[in-house]
Amino acid sequence: MKFRYWFCISVVLFFCKSLSAQGHSIDKDPDSIIVRHIFEESLSGTEIPEHLYYLTKKIGHRISGSAQAERAVKWIEHQLRALEADTVYLQPVKIPVWTRGAKERAFIQTGNGNVQTVSVLALGGSVSTQGALSAEVVEIRSWEELNEMPEEKIKGKFVFYNRAMDASMPDPFDAYLEAVDQRSIGAIEAARKGAVGALVRSLTLAKDNSPHTGAMQYAENVRKVPAAALSTLGADALSKALKENPTLKFSLEMHCSPQPDVLSHNVIAEIKGNYYPEEFITIGAHTDTWDVGEGASDDASGIVQTIEALRLFKTLNLVPKRSIRFIFYMNEESGAHGGKEYASEARKKGEIHLASIESDAGGFQPVGFRFDGAPETIQQVQKYSSFLSLYGIDGIKENQRGVDIAPMKGASEVLLSLDCESHRLFDIHHSALDTLDKLNFREVSLGAAAMTTMAYLISEYGL
Amino acid sequence: MKFRYWFCISVVLFFCKSLSAQGHSIDKDPDSIIVRHIFEESLSGTEIPEHLYYLTKKIGHRISGSAQAERAVKWIEHQLRALEADTVYLQPVKIPVWTRGAKERAFIQTGNGNVQTVSVLALGGSVSTQGALSAEVVEIRSWEELNEMPEEKIKGKFVFYNRAMDASMPDPFDAYLEAVDQRSIGAIEAARKGAVGALVRSLTLAKDNSPHTGAMQYAENVRKVPAAALSTLGADALSKALKENPTLKFSLEMHCSPQPDVLSHNVIAEIKGNYYPEEFITIGAHTDTWDVGEGASDDASGIVQTIEALRLFKTLNLVPKRSIRFIFYMNEESGAHGGKEYASEARKKGEIHLASIESDAGGFQPVGFRFDGAPETIQQVQKYSSFLSLYGIDGIKENQRGVDIAPMKGASEVLLSLDCESHRLFDIHHSALDTLDKLNFREVSLGAAAMTTMAYLISEYGL
Repeated sequence: MKFRYWFCISVVLFFCKSLSAQGHSIDKDPDSIIVRHIFEESLSGTEIPEHLYYLTKKIGHRISGSAQAERAVKWIEHQLRALEADTVYLQPVKIPVWTRGAKERAFIQTGNGNVQTVSVLALGGSVSTQGALSAEVVEIRSWEELNEMPEEKIKGKFVFYNRAMDASMPDPFDAYLEAVDQRSIGAIEAARKGAVGALVRSLTLAKDNSPHTGAMQYAENVRKVPAAALSTLGADALSKALKENPTLKFSLEMHCSPQPDVLSHNVIAEIKGNYYPEEFITIGAHTDTWDVGEGASDDASGIVQTIEALRLFKTLNLVPKRSIRFIFYMNEESGAHGGKEYASEARKKGEIHLASIESDAGGFQPVGFRFDGAPETIQQVQKYSSFLSLYGIDGIKENQRGVDIAPMKGASEVLLSLDCESHRLFDIHHSALDTLDKLNFREVSLGAAAMTTMAYLISEYGL
Repeated sequence: MKFRYWFCISVVLFFCKSLSAQGHSIDKDPDSIIVRHIFEESLSGTEIPEHLYYLTKKIGHRISGSAQAERAVKWIEHQLRALEADTVYLQPVKIPVWTRGAKERAFIQTGNGNVQTVSVLALGGSVSTQGALSAEVVEIRSWEELNEMPEEKIKGKFVFYNRAMDASMPDPFDAYLEAVDQRSIGAIEAARKGAVGALVRSLTLAKDNSPHTGAMQYAENVRKVPAAALSTLGADALSKALKENPTLKFSLEMHCSPQPDVLSHNVIAEIKGNYYPEEFITIGAHTDTWDVGEGASDDASGIVQTIEALRLFKTLNLVPKRSIRFIFYMNEESGAHGGKEYASEARKKGEIHLASIESDAGGFQPVGFRFDGAPETIQQVQKYSSFLSLYGIDGIKENQRGVDIAPMKGASEVLLSLDCESHRLFDIHHSALDTLDKLNFREVSLGAAAMTTMAYLISEYGL
């Protein structure tokens, strides 16, 4: 297989005068042929199904600092060595650790002695409730509502953030970004007004009993209060119960706790460029997950795509002009210390980065890339993306969304995050439902081929 | 909700001079605003989840002639009346009936007394095996191979069609269309050479033990031999066993049988146009399914989208210039007698049809429409589809794929089949895996909104 492909490509290259990606005629110029080979190989010869199975079923979820996360680091390193990258190494990263603890439970005390159980998940980083915490609840639908409410109405109570994601928006990812502040800073703003805890409606458009966790923040000099995500059905039930009895009590018990920092690693592999080895294009994804489900979509899909990108370069004997780095970041979910460490080192060494590419948008049908970079570079990126039009992956939109590549802003000419259909993503995101069966192997393969194509063309022709 | 929308739309229409869909500026002209309302309403106010649940879980699969198919007809009629369409009626259709029978089993007799079970499903329309049928097997990978093979090598044996769908093709639907002839005419071509039966590799890219059924044909004056689909893992196992022992025997037992024709119905609802009531645009899908799984993707998704399209017209008070018909065809899967009957009646009455729209491509993320019509009409269709670009549904490709609207070719100015991502479709198509959990409600809603938009714009501005 390997040999046949290389032979085809070589023959074609020999007979073609121009390699220019500009003004390419799809199906005839050698770049188009290479792109087709990348996609055909990824759709038919990939090990993505086996790799996804291993990460999700053999290792499982992989929260920062866990034994599973460390197993994933070792497994990834092993895969990269087996694919015979020119270099494979581990980059040390100091990361925060947080454990959920054994017990999590919540219920509404409806007043007449009855209780109604609500599914909850502690938000990542939350402090414990120190036993059961029982208090009244103030429901809040906007920051204005919270700001205008006098402190005495909040003091000693839970603030219940119940602003739902807007289902009418075309892209659920936008609806998520518009609602996520409740989860990120809800505990801080609640505590500023004297609340004893924060309850946050899960960030999903699905109506079910599966809560969705995610990162939250505390601020210096503001009391740390526990914060939990309620399932959407639980949030609806609480809201309804509050209408009937505004002084009902809500009981929350969570045994989660922050732990001392530990040392973990980014995994990095490299294929050396044969013209400009000191210039880099990176492709990456994050190794860690939350501690529920299997982290299939977030971000096993990105991990296997990045391994697949390396496999495609090697199998198709694509020798890049610039060096390609394949980066497996640690700790995206709770601080992105891996991404920050990589950027900090790259800046210290004065490395030249043309493009930082990341896959962390769910692994569903890819539709293009999200872009951040100087305006004069976007046209070139759009030209390269036109090679992906046959597969429907040629959209270039602004506002790149990769958390791990964000620290490279300014140090890398462009940042590109793989953009995927997100209708399915937020049904499962950061929840027990993020499992292997939700993914489609072909959709994951297409994302790998798209990143490989983009990295290859940037490596060949620059920006 | 109803009133608010209509008020907004009316105010906008009043203040805008031009309604032209040509040269529209997205977000400002009244058509764009109407399209946005269509999508917002379908994404946030739809009953699609409840309708899908009823069709798939309460009724279940709905093969032509079954009690479930008749329940679906009644349920659809009830929904259309509840939505207060101007007219709702049933169109009688005579349909063929076929039953699978109680028992289906197959195994490879490996020669040393061992047997290996293989998952099979009779193809739809197949005759029974009349007890267990045991014979040698000839594996065939192409029609050339079959044609060149002398009759004596085939006589008395099973012909085993094992040409897999081509995974490297960008669109699995194309790979399906390229391989489906094995299922359609495999039994005929096998019988012509004296075979006792046809075994067909399931038309899917998934590797599993779930066989995929589908329609097959017999020809006059050619012996009717039984035909079964083998799961892909079963086909691989048989192929491997044949390499080890070319004279092994395969045993197949199926109790299926064709039954006498019965009378069933297309269900049709209408909203009368207020300018050209005698001109029609149709939106439709098929009520019947195969007799395994739940027919969720094929074609409960299309059914609920068509009901939703009616709901959107009514809820948003969209009064079309031309009449809109909502058609629920019976018997797409085994002869398309519903589609043929509708077209035959429309021709007889000399009805004017501008567009026949169908949803039968799986109900996954819609990407546009497949078109068939006079070349001069495609530009107008493309203009209308540009209204769908915000949702990624603006692709117009040739080769419409709707089986029920195909008989309207020539009688309808354009045929438009909703085009969807098909990476997920063929994993479940015509199999026990076609169940509700595979669908995403937002993706289904987007398809409904896209068909509604297209019908509305054609009704307003013609072709």
